[in-house]
Amino acid sequence: MTEFFNVLPSGDALGALTARLRHRPKVEIAPTAEAVGRVTAGSLTSPEDLPAFPRSAMDGYSVRASDTFGAAEGQPAYLTVAGEVAMGRAPSVSIGAGEAARTFTGGMLARGGDAVLMVEQTQAVDDRTIEVLSPVAPGENVIQPGEDVRAGSRILPAGHLLRPQDVGGLMALGITTVEVTARPRVSIVSTGDELVPPSSKPGPGQVRDVNTYTVSGLIREAGGAPVPIGLVADDYEAQRRAAKEGLDRGDALVFSAGSSVSSRDMTAEVIASLGKPGVLVHGLAHKPGKPTIVALVGGKPVFGLPGNPVSAMVVFELLVRPTIYALSGLSDPPAPGAVSARLTRDLPSQAGREDHVHVKLARRGGVLYAEPSFGKSNLIYTMVRADGTVIVPLDKGGLYAGEDVDVQPF
Amino acid sequence: MTEFFNVLPSGDALGALTARLRHRPKVEIAPTAEAVGRVTAGSLTSPEDLPAFPRSAMDGYSVRASDTFGAAEGQPAYLTVAGEVAMGRAPSVSIGAGEAARTFTGGMLARGGDAVLMVEQTQAVDDRTIEVLSPVAPGENVIQPGEDVRAGSRILPAGHLLRPQDVGGLMALGITTVEVTARPRVSIVSTGDELVPPSSKPGPGQVRDVNTYTVSGLIREAGGAPVPIGLVADDYEAQRRAAKEGLDRGDALVFSAGSSVSSRDMTAEVIASLGKPGVLVHGLAHKPGKPTIVALVGGKPVFGLPGNPVSAMVVFELLVRPTIYALSGLSDPPAPGAVSARLTRDLPSQAGREDHVHVKLARRGGVLYAEPSFGKSNLIYTMVRADGTVIVPLDKGGLYAGEDVDVQPF
Repeated sequence: MTEFFNVLPSGDALGALTARLRHRPKVEIAPTAEAVGRVTAGSLTSPEDLPAFPRSAMDGYSVRASDTFGAAEGQPAYLTVAGEVAMGRAPSVSIGAGEAARTFTGGMLARGGDAVLMVEQTQAVDDRTIEVLSPVAPGENVIQPGEDVRAGSRILPAGHLLRPQDVGGLMALGITTVEVTARPRVSIVSTGDELVPPSSKPGPGQVRDVNTYTVSGLIREAGGAPVPIGLVADDYEAQRRAAKEGLDRGDALVFSAGSSVSSRDMTAEVIASLGKPGVLVHGLAHKPGKPTIVALVGGKPVFGLPGNPVSAMVVFELLVRPTIYALSGLSDPPAPGAVSARLTRDLPSQAGREDHVHVKLARRGGVLYAEPSFGKSNLIYTMVRADGTVIVPLDKGGLYAGEDVDVQPF
Repeated sequence: MTEFFNVLPSGDALGALTARLRHRPKVEIAPTAEAVGRVTAGSLTSPEDLPAFPRSAMDGYSVRASDTFGAAEGQPAYLTVAGEVAMGRAPSVSIGAGEAARTFTGGMLARGGDAVLMVEQTQAVDDRTIEVLSPVAPGENVIQPGEDVRAGSRILPAGHLLRPQDVGGLMALGITTVEVTARPRVSIVSTGDELVPPSSKPGPGQVRDVNTYTVSGLIREAGGAPVPIGLVADDYEAQRRAAKEGLDRGDALVFSAGSSVSSRDMTAEVIASLGKPGVLVHGLAHKPGKPTIVALVGGKPVFGLPGNPVSAMVVFELLVRPTIYALSGLSDPPAPGAVSARLTRDLPSQAGREDHVHVKLARRGGVLYAEPSFGKSNLIYTMVRADGTVIVPLDKGGLYAGEDVDVQPF
């Protein structure tokens, strides 16, 4: 029943792992239209100027700017409307001195024009004549070629998580396929003599496996591909076989330990036996999350997560999610947004330990409150009933009722 | 060139639509293991107690609490270890007065035991005897049947977005399939004589379609299924045909108007012609987003989005995303988290108008700064280079450089 704890704060534990990671993600070619949520494998440069031609930024008239100089409401200039620039084709109209041509947002300018006069700056006199009520400078209301992106300039860095607007930006340049990194495959082994599959009716002393499914969902959310290896009893050889299969089939391996101390001990032994460099961290300076193992085997990260579902989820967020980001080559992970809420109860904590407390959010009288849920970490419904996490930092002795705190929704 | 604007703040525009929505989402049966991100079609109640048996919350010993009363470090009680409760099966050991049985976290108690003594509260004397250093109350360190969830109690409401922990909670109760609402199908029609598909080389005056792809990505992020109907020139009959196809195939229709005023006018006419009750809102009190149309046709929402990609994305977030949530039956949409950052420049605004300003986030000297990007809204790379949005509220005349503002990352 002895346990060795090489207890580290989670940031240090993660650093110990990522500093040793040498993973080079495989490169895949994805249709750009389906690439939201994927990570760029390399940086991308623009093959052309965007826009490719001077585009009008307004609805109005192509003009020669010099024809408008000095124009004012009391002293309008008069221009003859020579025609209209149709959308989507080269202008058939050209303008000379004293002439204008109807021009639309996003369209080309008339030949001979060097600025766009907004329709609001004009007054129609008759079908063929407008009054100009204010001057425009050359280039005014015109988007110049390359003003959005210049040919040859970098449009996206490597390791960038593609968003809808990035896909739009690539499509605008005709980039219809894009090199992205392969989704990291993360194998999951759940251990414990007490576990049965969710489709079974548990016998006395048995419980259904939960962690395979919560962890699979979290892996997908982080951009990885879960590889469920299966449920394994507390049998050393069976666990080693499952672990080796998990390492073969995945880029990383997550072990969800059984809830008994003997099961945790066995998982630790199995992880320690898998290969070099082996166990890097055993234990986190964290609540919950103490019985956590971080290892590296043949270049692949291996995690021993606590068996109870609440702790497993917390440790996943601290260690596994950022590791999946690293394995996918993601260099700018999304910043976790927070909502501000008023704490309803004191949250005492120990200095030197980072606490993660789950809260329910409730709005009363226009104020958003964060109500800590003090469920035992063995209870999965503690997480079902909660809306987010409040972190009590390492250097604080606690948070007080009435304080405004940041809640990370989940 | 006349335009009619029935300009409303976005909240009112959305309310005008959702108050009239009578959509009842179709119900689908999904494997629970794949249901993260889906919305529950009905409320769910627990078929059984969880846990199903009294579970130990600790590693230690099953005892009769009365045997430990009065025990203290200086005055230990002595108990005989009668055996061990194996994980995952009914206990084979029973304890009488003066006896204890090794018991593990998550396991059953020995028959005859009514509390669990933590291993830290004991001291081994020999293989068969322990000293008890502190007393336990009956039920202490025991999770009672139904303590996590009671049979018959509601576990999830209808209209709930399923998260990894919810899937875990369902699996714990053997609920391996779940009734969810169908993903709302949202048809997309892009209009404008100037548009060509991204795979084409644009001719003079032509640009590649962007909005079909940004809007598709946003629809997917909101839990919908995009149905791209295609690119349509500024031809009234062709647009009507496309709109009718979109209404047939989708639960909602998004029109992305061309950039010229004539194209916007035609889109507005087409939307107005589709059926009853028709156009509800024409114009938003918003920057960007003025030329926006909200309509309802035969119970299906129809949106006319501005043609330029930046405005289209902003209006999508304001109107289309919450409508997709409503169509999917989602009653508790995720709270958009924000990060706090220091504004680098003044953001003047008009009172009575809500401005959405895109910003780039940059950390310098430990401070996170929000740098407004004042790109023209015709430039898609304005959005590619930005990290999030700052909202200048309706009732404010602006925000000042140096203020800490909430940035919603995107």
